[in-house]
Amino acid sequence: MNRLKAEDAIKNFLLEDIGDRDVSSVLFTEEDRGEAVVRLKQDGVVAGLDCFKWGYRLLDPTIIVESLKTDGDFVESGEAIIRIQGPVAALLAGERVLLNLVQRMSAIATLTAQCVEALGSTHTRIVDTRKTTPGLRMFEKYAVRVGGGFNHRNGLYDAVMLKDNHIAAAGSITQAVQRVRTALGHMTMIEVEVESLAELQEAIAARPDVIMFDNQTPDTMKAWVQLVPEPIRTEASGGIDLNNLAAYRHTGVDVISIGALTHSVHNLDISMNLTISQKEAIHQ
Amino acid sequence: MNRLKAEDAIKNFLLEDIGDRDVSSVLFTEEDRGEAVVRLKQDGVVAGLDCFKWGYRLLDPTIIVESLKTDGDFVESGEAIIRIQGPVAALLAGERVLLNLVQRMSAIATLTAQCVEALGSTHTRIVDTRKTTPGLRMFEKYAVRVGGGFNHRNGLYDAVMLKDNHIAAAGSITQAVQRVRTALGHMTMIEVEVESLAELQEAIAARPDVIMFDNQTPDTMKAWVQLVPEPIRTEASGGIDLNNLAAYRHTGVDVISIGALTHSVHNLDISMNLTISQKEAIHQ
Amino acid sequence: MNRLKAEDAIKNFLLEDIGDRDVSSVLFTEEDRGEAVVRLKQDGVVAGLDCFKWGYRLLDPTIIVESLKTDGDFVESGEAIIRIQGPVAALLAGERVLLNLVQRMSAIATLTAQCVEALGSTHTRIVDTRKTTPGLRMFEKYAVRVGGGFNHRNGLYDAVMLKDNHIAAAGSITQAVQRVRTALGHMTMIEVEVESLAELQEAIAARPDVIMFDNQTPDTMKAWVQLVPEPIRTEASGGIDLNNLAAYRHTGVDVISIGALTHSVHNLDISMNLTISQKEAIHQ
Amino acid sequence: MNRLKAEDAIKNFLLEDIGDRDVSSVLFTEEDRGEAVVRLKQDGVVAGLDCFKWGYRLLDPTIIVESLKTDGDFVESGEAIIRIQGPVAALLAGERVLLNLVQRMSAIATLTAQCVEALGSTHTRIVDTRKTTPGLRMFEKYAVRVGGGFNHRNGLYDAVMLKDNHIAAAGSITQAVQRVRTALGHMTMIEVEVESLAELQEAIAARPDVIMFDNQTPDTMKAWVQLVPEPIRTEASGGIDLNNLAAYRHTGVDVISIGALTHSVHNLDISMNLTISQKEAIHQ
Amino acid sequence: MNRLKAEDAIKNFLLEDIGDRDVSSVLFTEEDRGEAVVRLKQDGVVAGLDCFKWGYRLLDPTIIVESLKTDGDFVESGEAIIRIQGPVAALLAGERVLLNLVQRMSAIATLTAQCVEALGSTHTRIVDTRKTTPGLRMFEKYAVRVGGGFNHRNGLYDAVMLKDNHIAAAGSITQAVQRVRTALGHMTMIEVEVESLAELQEAIAARPDVIMFDNQTPDTMKAWVQLVPEPIRTEASGGIDLNNLAAYRHTGVDVISIGALTHSVHNLDISMNLTISQKEAIHQ
Amino acid sequence: MNRLKAEDAIKNFLLEDIGDRDVSSVLFTEEDRGEAVVRLKQDGVVAGLDCFKWGYRLLDPTIIVESLKTDGDFVESGEAIIRIQGPVAALLAGERVLLNLVQRMSAIATLTAQCVEALGSTHTRIVDTRKTTPGLRMFEKYAVRVGGGFNHRNGLYDAVMLKDNHIAAAGSITQAVQRVRTALGHMTMIEVEVESLAELQEAIAARPDVIMFDNQTPDTMKAWVQLVPEPIRTEASGGIDLNNLAAYRHTGVDVISIGALTHSVHNLDISMNLTISQKEAIHQ
Repeated sequence: MNRLKAEDAIKNFLLEDIGDRDVSSVLFTEEDRGEAVVRLKQDGVVAGLDCFKWGYRLLDPTIIVESLKTDGDFVESGEAIIRIQGPVAALLAGERVLLNLVQRMSAIATLTAQCVEALGSTHTRIVDTRKTTPGLRMFEKYAVRVGGGFNHRNGLYDAVMLKDNHIAAAGSITQAVQRVRTALGHMTMIEVEVESLAELQEAIAARPDVIMFDNQTPDTMKAWVQLVPEPIRTEASGGIDLNNLAAYRHTGVDVISIGALTHSVHNLDISMNLTISQKEAIHQ
Repeated sequence: MNRLKAEDAIKNFLLEDIGDRDVSSVLFTEEDRGEAVVRLKQDGVVAGLDCFKWGYRLLDPTIIVESLKTDGDFVESGEAIIRIQGPVAALLAGERVLLNLVQRMSAIATLTAQCVEALGSTHTRIVDTRKTTPGLRMFEKYAVRVGGGFNHRNGLYDAVMLKDNHIAAAGSITQAVQRVRTALGHMTMIEVEVESLAELQEAIAARPDVIMFDNQTPDTMKAWVQLVPEPIRTEASGGIDLNNLAAYRHTGVDVISIGALTHSVHNLDISMNLTISQKEAIHQ
Repeated sequence: MNRLKAEDAIKNFLLEDIGDRDVSSVLFTEEDRGEAVVRLKQDGVVAGLDCFKWGYRLLDPTIIVESLKTDGDFVESGEAIIRIQGPVAALLAGERVLLNLVQRMSAIATLTAQCVEALGSTHTRIVDTRKTTPGLRMFEKYAVRVGGGFNHRNGLYDAVMLKDNHIAAAGSITQAVQRVRTALGHMTMIEVEVESLAELQEAIAARPDVIMFDNQTPDTMKAWVQLVPEPIRTEASGGIDLNNLAAYRHTGVDVISIGALTHSVHNLDISMNLTISQKEAIHQ
Repeated sequence: MNRLKAEDAIKNFLLEDIGDRDVSSVLFTEEDRGEAVVRLKQDGVVAGLDCFKWGYRLLDPTIIVESLKTDGDFVESGEAIIRIQGPVAALLAGERVLLNLVQRMSAIATLTAQCVEALGSTHTRIVDTRKTTPGLRMFEKYAVRVGGGFNHRNGLYDAVMLKDNHIAAAGSITQAVQRVRTALGHMTMIEVEVESLAELQEAIAARPDVIMFDNQTPDTMKAWVQLVPEPIRTEASGGIDLNNLAAYRHTGVDVISIGALTHSVHNLDISMNLTISQKEAIHQ
Repeated sequence: MNRLKAEDAIKNFLLEDIGDRDVSSVLFTEEDRGEAVVRLKQDGVVAGLDCFKWGYRLLDPTIIVESLKTDGDFVESGEAIIRIQGPVAALLAGERVLLNLVQRMSAIATLTAQCVEALGSTHTRIVDTRKTTPGLRMFEKYAVRVGGGFNHRNGLYDAVMLKDNHIAAAGSITQAVQRVRTALGHMTMIEVEVESLAELQEAIAARPDVIMFDNQTPDTMKAWVQLVPEPIRTEASGGIDLNNLAAYRHTGVDVISIGALTHSVHNLDISMNLTISQKEAIHQ
Repeated sequence: MNRLKAEDAIKNFLLEDIGDRDVSSVLFTEEDRGEAVVRLKQDGVVAGLDCFKWGYRLLDPTIIVESLKTDGDFVESGEAIIRIQGPVAALLAGERVLLNLVQRMSAIATLTAQCVEALGSTHTRIVDTRKTTPGLRMFEKYAVRVGGGFNHRNGLYDAVMLKDNHIAAAGSITQAVQRVRTALGHMTMIEVEVESLAELQEAIAARPDVIMFDNQTPDTMKAWVQLVPEPIRTEASGGIDLNNLAAYRHTGVDVISIGALTHSVHNLDISMNLTISQKEAIHQ
């Protein structure tokens, strides 16, 4: 992730929650300092640990954030992942927002890792889609990578995906591919979506960079993969998720794209436990 | 929702996906116009239909967006909710982002409505939490209202929630409530979290506006509700979700807060189907 | 105040004055360093001292800002409140903007403190209104608190104020209160404005959280306060200022709101005196 | 004023007050429309009437705003200045913020007009200073012009003001003027502040564009004006306000700068009166 | 170009020049309307005509902008490209900024078209680089396309370019390509820069998507092209410009990248001629 | 330059190129550190060296940037100007953007210095225009100063330039000058453009601060300068560039404005050479 961009986003997330001030913080003085430990309450793959560092540094540069794990680590329920020391008021001001973010990122990383494991393929990759949460794409695509998945295109700006409407407008797959090849630079990947054998055959002849098999059975996909010559890559797509993924293991496709990686995750249960320093002990 | 604020957010969401341009749009000219129909692919309560209007107006002020349903409507799978007419390139440029947003909002509204129905109470309300997606709080809290739920505090800035650390810092529940009452204005609600009968009794004596029963059994909550005098309101919280909600029906608490309403929803399946106008027909 | 938000605002204030550069600063080199002392030129309560720290840190992280007083201190004319050391160019670049801000904040704190003293009540509180300077609400509401006052609602988003138009639209006070109670969550305070005994009686029956007596004589207010049962709070409003405030001392209302606290203050006279270091002395 | 810049500022002011939504607006539907009339409650010169247009257009493009007066008009208490028609919810959402802004602008215009009249000079002009409210400089400097005053420099970026520290750093007035003349372009005005006859004489010899007489008696200023040759302009400054301004009438200075024009005004009393349309009448 | 993004940029460009207001515009009233015609003062290919529409619509939605040419048209000196009607003040306020932008864009389009013509190849394409003006990449890459060129990668985020440092860090070209293939998704193009035959041979074996010949003679490039098998594409780079471009015509490379297209153009000479409407004529 | 403003701009420039991340950086770990040396590849005057400090500090606060030259130094081809030490990934992430910026700034400084030298006048100054690159005005006007030139007005907001349209609207030069003098404050410079002797004579009588001779021969200008009395300054403008500048040496005008200083420079050739630290050596 680009830290410059991430910090700007996290700053906005913090402002969304804190607004003009945390009214409950009137109970704390600057002398009230504490230590917070962030722990998983269920097993999972952690992603986004730097967000604690970046977020707390924004709130108070004197806060010390220590990572006890590394992004991508599989962590068991109960294990600590982050230790934070600083003013209690600032620790509480950032707690909910940063947990909201990292719980989501870790959930995505965990689901991705589960998919990678369920697939059990050394050849086929799990990739994400553009079905990300508005405003969080950079964070979510990072989390997919942390979980062992790969990123599909970033957005509409960096690769072509020719779907039914594009093909209809161009007249045919052949013309669609030809026209985008002619119109766009050599660094832009071109992918075509096909839904039938006839479309597949036309697509192969048109030589795109990638062909996506949309909503086909594993058996069909397996058969189609055999037809696609190098260097065209193949993608399986459509209604594939953790539950039915194993069925696609032997299709031989290069990538399987799974929208559910980012659009419908259950946040990983992570909590922060804060201990206020014993002032007496300090003052004695 | 504040339209001014929503439009700014949606603009950023669109920029996140489109970037410098939709490269695939080279296949379309300004004359390529079409009609898109947005349909549900599973039953649910729709929320955020205005986002299609606001988003498409940003992309192209000539696009016509017609709502076929109203936020809060229960819509069956297959039914159309929005009809959009305009340039194909713009329709496709906004499709994914606006669906990402409205699918999430509708999922929240649907889950909330399910919770309200599962609870089946005329007294007890379902409320949200601060466990919202970073950057989307306004949208998600709106969706909760659309689904028949209510909003808890907006953020750290508009109400006090006294949890263990606040109480520890203040010395006791009594002192914590007293100190925030003294420090804060008369328009700031004060809520205290209690985890035992002793805490409850102390909290009642301290006269906050709301007392939250944290992680108690329904039976305990039912008993505790009896102890809390008017006008103090009661809140049930902790691990409550659609599956176990019914058990809290007879507790008599005023509100039940459910973090899962916003932090872990499965996007409602909504799709957009686009038909490119028959240019021949038009030109004849 | 939320430092993150304050710093962004102060940065914009500095940019408004400095623009592309302080053209007069061509007379100074980086070696020209000095010490500036900020002093009051009239008695008052200071508020916003952190703004000097935040603002000068933005201009130059090497500047050292030392607070000689604390927000809320009553300071006599001539006394120093802040000492700053750093490059002369940066000291001058921030001088006017930061004084403009802190003079206004201190004026508000001072006027609030005068009101609190003039009122001389242990029960009744002085509160602000939404009549703040556009863009400065967070700073001005903070200054009210520093002066011993309290904040009314932050904005339209965090509490209900039912005025004549709302009541007219709803049909009656009773219906207005009922409808907002039904529509809004349990954390939203509801206040009703009343202008007659009949309205007061209807309001009491409707059980809002707060009743505001709009533009009534102190005697009327005193009588009305007796009628309002716990836990409804009472607010006096309308044309009350430092000059006539004492007349409301014995009304027994819970809060008196004073728009003039923020909309019409005379900046407290504060000036910065800068001494350029003797370079000769240093170089010897 | 630059409308593009003003609209951005007003948008932020509206967001500051409205936040995620106006919670009280739940009482209104889109069909509740009304007419609001903005009236002065004290005599004054109005400034900023366009802000109503710009602000309400942001809130709802269907709102109709009709100016009944023109910026700079002297308006008597009770007279209407603006008539607005549109949805009640939007009318109320913008009311307070736009009044806060226009009350302040009109107060500045009124005070400026009073100063111009009190001075009663056809030669000497009233000018503002950089003692403006942070974030509002464009609005406040515009209001000064509306009131018949003139603007001093916009900020640190567009003209030189040589004060004691600059002169100390340069070694002398002579050197200070010479060095900025040498360093800066021909479009940058140079003003020198003088506090004694000796300084004045040195300043005259240095040929700046403007000489400011700082904190001198009217008699001294009158004498000094005689000494300053064309085309150097003269400015009186320091503790001059509406009360003592007349004493400077016969000094003959070119401009008198008055910080109090912008830093310490009492908002002009302006109110908005809203009438909800009779729906019955409409529906019959 | 993404209009949403372009408008935001143009708004900032206008604010940069206009600031709080165009002081010279005090000579015009709202009734002073005029017609401006934008003409080329030297032959060239125009690019960015929409910027006039977008920019003037921001300044005043009533301004009418009529394009007399289309982006990509070769226009002769003296020919008109845009006609604009509206308030004189607004026409002048936008003139310089919009000309600055469109002159630069048209210069890039013109130079690109000259390069395309000088190359005279049906196979080899002219492409741009990341040597764009900071803040203007979207505009400049668009202008390259308008001139008949193509875009290389958009930025660091959408394609890999393996240069000496990357190869050194990875250990070899082979390892560098392998590692990025392994690390990145299937939609990310990988290009390798080679400077010797040995490197070329290693690169070919590593199977990147593109191989760039850095700073080689045309003859060497021609020889190297023969060695590179399908589907690897070849790029010529390094010190190639309009003057020496023809020498690369017969190399057979797929693309030639030319930094000078965007980093060092002479603005195309374009001017705006404004005629103020005859008010008398209108009023008669 | 105002560092606060410059850093914001540079941050945006970096985000434009890096986006969500530098994909090629997957080859580097945090331990891969290196030293980069920035060198000129052609002779020139360097400007903008601070941009390397500001930009790299944004990317990574641990990066050490050492200036080997000072802005304004004439540097020979091959000489080093900046040395940078830090993580390789960050060094590469900033390289292109910062070079793009500094190459442009240095080109402007170099061209300005060449103009100053070509003019060879101790009296006449070289000044810039508003023909700057949109978004870069502060940087480009700074570069002009570094090169020994001076700035004309900053924008439309800080000085008056009366051209044909203004004069037509006002009726005459006399009325135009009179009206802006009357309308604007004493700190606003007024310049008039003249194209004939008659206009010049009228302009002189109107007493603006500056008179611009538009598109006149050197001989005409020389004659006209004699006619213009103190303290009116004279400006030569129109088609003057490095090639024909010497012809204006003896005109005696106060300033010569040259649009080409900023609108059409060839970037100075500057490159960054990066050496990755020998990890072996470190680890032994």
